[in-house]
Amino acid sequence: MTQRRHSIAVIPGDGIGPEVIEAGQRVLEALADRFDFALDWTTFDWSCERYAETGTMMPEDGIDQVRAHDAIYLGAVGWPSVPDHVSLWGLLIPLRRDLDLYANVRPVKLFEGVTCPLAGRTPDDIDFVVVRENVEGEYSKIGGRLYEGTEHEAANQVAMFTRHGTDRIMDIAFELAQTRRKHVTSATKSNGIVHTMPFWDERFEAAKTRHPGIDTAAYHIDILTAHFVLNPDRFDVVVASNLFGDILSDLGPAIAGSIGIAPSANLNPARTTPSMFEPVHGSALDIAGQGIANPAAAIWSGAMMLDHLGETAASDAVMSALAETFKHPETRTRDLGGTASTSEAVDAVLKAMG
Amino acid sequence: MTQRRHSIAVIPGDGIGPEVIEAGQRVLEALADRFDFALDWTTFDWSCERYAETGTMMPEDGIDQVRAHDAIYLGAVGWPSVPDHVSLWGLLIPLRRDLDLYANVRPVKLFEGVTCPLAGRTPDDIDFVVVRENVEGEYSKIGGRLYEGTEHEAANQVAMFTRHGTDRIMDIAFELAQTRRKHVTSATKSNGIVHTMPFWDERFEAAKTRHPGIDTAAYHIDILTAHFVLNPDRFDVVVASNLFGDILSDLGPAIAGSIGIAPSANLNPARTTPSMFEPVHGSALDIAGQGIANPAAAIWSGAMMLDHLGETAASDAVMSALAETFKHPETRTRDLGGTASTSEAVDAVLKAMG
Ligand SMILES: CC(C)[C@H](C(=O)O)[C@@H](O)C(=O)O
Ligand SMILES: CC(C)[C@H](C(=O)O)[C@@H](O)C(=O)O
Repeated sequence: MTQRRHSIAVIPGDGIGPEVIEAGQRVLEALADRFDFALDWTTFDWSCERYAETGTMMPEDGIDQVRAHDAIYLGAVGWPSVPDHVSLWGLLIPLRRDLDLYANVRPVKLFEGVTCPLAGRTPDDIDFVVVRENVEGEYSKIGGRLYEGTEHEAANQVAMFTRHGTDRIMDIAFELAQTRRKHVTSATKSNGIVHTMPFWDERFEAAKTRHPGIDTAAYHIDILTAHFVLNPDRFDVVVASNLFGDILSDLGPAIAGSIGIAPSANLNPARTTPSMFEPVHGSALDIAGQGIANPAAAIWSGAMMLDHLGETAASDAVMSALAETFKHPETRTRDLGGTASTSEAVDAVLKAMG
Repeated sequence: MTQRRHSIAVIPGDGIGPEVIEAGQRVLEALADRFDFALDWTTFDWSCERYAETGTMMPEDGIDQVRAHDAIYLGAVGWPSVPDHVSLWGLLIPLRRDLDLYANVRPVKLFEGVTCPLAGRTPDDIDFVVVRENVEGEYSKIGGRLYEGTEHEAANQVAMFTRHGTDRIMDIAFELAQTRRKHVTSATKSNGIVHTMPFWDERFEAAKTRHPGIDTAAYHIDILTAHFVLNPDRFDVVVASNLFGDILSDLGPAIAGSIGIAPSANLNPARTTPSMFEPVHGSALDIAGQGIANPAAAIWSGAMMLDHLGETAASDAVMSALAETFKHPETRTRDLGGTASTSEAVDAVLKAMG
């Protein structure tokens, strides 16, 4: 039998990015050994550091350089001195868009041992996934300004929703719900904004008929954020537009006490391009280089990558091990009220894998 | 000395709207007696009920009918059978827009006796105000659809920000902070959306220089929602665009356990038109007519109205009394874990006023 091989483009990025990616790679290599597959890593130095040296976040043919890989494993990108429109629109956003990684999948889970900011909540109460549309919607380059710099100045921004883009993200959400508790909640705002969200609602209705056997609910985004706090147990899969999904996928980890450990998968479910896996946390320059960064988000993102690559047994194994390490202060990092360094946290995960 | 008189346009609306408005009026009349001013009420039947009978939410010259009053006191509007674009764009939104009520002011406060969904938080931790831009921004009629009903269908929506509209809402926020703890937080998203939010940031910077002595912070809306849950004590005044303010002013009351008691003021600070005061809660048809609706949001909104009308002593008196009633189960309504009916809750407020 030939061994399964997966080629991974690695973009460690800035700040704690390289540290957590290295930690993740250690864990993923151990899993490869154990579950008998191989990972071929190719590392790219795309980052604000590179921008400072060369003037671009990535080479002009960057997207093509990663295109042939099976997946992309990204740490964190960002320096305070580099404007967001450079660091994000020069790297993260083109990767999402040019590779058509239209489904941003962000799990939210309360783990035993992790402090929950909500009163009286247990792990049974918080376990859902935000499925965010990742390439269209409110994020667009369409818009501009008039009378710049004068008192008459005005700026506009166009949100664009297509049936193509909306239907396919609905399908991903419903298919995911099929493998979980069979419930999808739609984040809408059709009462306040006139054109795009009633359209979103119609496509949600259409998706329901394509996916029988799934229970559904729809909330306006304002009250939905309230329900995340008041009734997190109502949610299984939450499908949301680019902006609403961005908000819900930060609020979700906040209520689960997991803002520092939240992972994210940017998927092209058609698999015609490599999907990208990245922690939700940023480059955290204030703690970079100290060996104390929490590797959990990178490890969890790695688990999602393995799952996407078909290595589900390995993915399950690392998730159980990771969950185990959260239970004990000596295997949790400081941000979770523990004492472990980055490498001790990795050792603990490896040990828990047995 | 001639008595101060204030003429109020009352729109009780649907569901529990009339019940809570009647409760609010009882309290406001008692305050008028005690603080020696007079309230002249004119009631308008604008509602979904009216729509069902006549085909319109309000008469064509409705805005002109209320224009001459000193303030508008609105209950709640909405029937499940009447589409939002009818009930909201036929009443609430035109009132906000045609009267140029550009500042939506929504206080968030944890009261003693009200259960907080966040672990370990006390009233000292949660006391801030969301100042929401109320007439422009993401809420606009601009946009539409192409290829409707086909697989090529697309919808767009244009957000419009003007310097006029942005600067004046910033000013309201900074002026309010001046009377409070002198801190303003801006809700932005200049890293993800290209044109309007960098503009918003620039106007926030400009406002800072117009209002020295105010401390400031700015967060992207995604992480800001997380901070509402994790660090609510960071906030004093939060200034936000129409959509972000809509979200934050539901999330805020959720973290303070006050979703059923949150008030809102739709202000024209120039006072060239009547400002409007309304509970944030909806028409709650499921409990309408049972005499159990919580009048607190209507009373609190009434207190904001008195404050706006210059009756600050009366406003302060009713807020202290209201806060007192939350402390005891027999003077709290059922939604707050108490036993009081609507009228018992009103009696308790009147009694606490002494
Ligand atoms: C009902 C709806 C149009 C409204 C809004 O979005 O402004 C409501 O949510 C509010 O916050 O007053
Ligand atoms: C950094 C920013 C552009 C990005 C987004 O808004 O998509 C981030 O918040 C995220 O959620 O991945």
